[in-house]
Amino acid sequence: MIQFWFDFASTYSYPAAMRVEEAALRYECALRWRPFLLGAIFKEQGWNDSPFNIYPVKGRYMWRDLERLCAGLRLTFRKASQFPRNGLLAARIACVSEKNEWLPEFVRKVFAANFAQDLDIAEPNVLLDCLNGLADDPPAVLAAASGYQAKSRLHRNTKRAIELGIFGAPTFVVGDELFWGNDRLEAALEWSRAGRSAS
Amino acid sequence: MIQFWFDFASTYSYPAAMRVEEAALRYECALRWRPFLLGAIFKEQGWNDSPFNIYPVKGRYMWRDLERLCAGLRLTFRKASQFPRNGLLAARIACVSEKNEWLPEFVRKVFAANFAQDLDIAEPNVLLDCLNGLADDPPAVLAAASGYQAKSRLHRNTKRAIELGIFGAPTFVVGDELFWGNDRLEAALEWSRAGRSAS
Repeated sequence: MIQFWFDFASTYSYPAAMRVEEAALRYECALRWRPFLLGAIFKEQGWNDSPFNIYPVKGRYMWRDLERLCAGLRLTFRKASQFPRNGLLAARIACVSEKNEWLPEFVRKVFAANFAQDLDIAEPNVLLDCLNGLADDPPAVLAAASGYQAKSRLHRNTKRAIELGIFGAPTFVVGDELFWGNDRLEAALEWSRAGRSAS
Repeated sequence: MIQFWFDFASTYSYPAAMRVEEAALRYECALRWRPFLLGAIFKEQGWNDSPFNIYPVKGRYMWRDLERLCAGLRLTFRKASQFPRNGLLAARIACVSEKNEWLPEFVRKVFAANFAQDLDIAEPNVLLDCLNGLADDPPAVLAAASGYQAKSRLHRNTKRAIELGIFGAPTFVVGDELFWGNDRLEAALEWSRAGRSAS
């Protein structure tokens, strides 16, 4: 099993989210989607902003790299006019929708809203649009996302991420092993496959 | 042409240095070795130590990841008992040896000393051992490495790295494009190949 830890504000989580399901299928590997809040982990490291903003040289590289990566994957990409965007509400929706088979599609729609359509994913209306055609009752899902269960699940996920030693997104977890970054997805899946052949 | 920007203290520069020549040959791509001092760039960002030490969670991940990477590449790896090591003298030797055909082999020997044999590459004797069997007169090379030309070349390289927008090592440069990290070597070489087919 591979766990995909992601944050809706995280740039490299975008290409990872778009390709993780197909890649896991190709490796015949079960996939678990794990939303968390990277900002909470950054705060523990003393950062009140994305390191891509704190270190502009690194930020410039990241945007160009992401543009190249998305071109290579034939993914639409538009540099977000606001970064990072607040992914809290979207993450809470993902937390209360864990059991729904449309969760992966919802996650991809939110990432596309942020990084392909340059929409503000903190806006409830943008998230309602993402839920449309997926959830039976989008306003009910949105309401549930403000409830205690949603908040507590997201809080628990973020706490778990810290326990696992996660410090960035996306991170793939296979057993006790972490693989940080979109470009380590295949390495994580290879690790999972090697574990299965050994057992 | 691909430029390989590296720092002898940098952990991920180790696997990159061991495989860059063979990989460039495979892509029929000319290779230029560019030593620089990452520490000088870190200082500009307000860091007086490696970020892997400043952020221990990231550091723990890095050592485990490097161990896995080296196992996959069948490269001997021993966690350095001192990190980061001072690569200044080794970098100066590389700077005065740019034109020598043994430069790549010297670079690999220094990286192996640091990350496979756990030797202190700041020690002149360790570097003399690395030069043995390569340079005609190892003590003369060591002496030249303390001269004005060596210092000025390394200073110029580091300044150039900053101008290029380099913020970490290893970094591969193809034309105006940067590719940061050992695992982006193939992407850099693909970029170089695509540029040649287009022209």
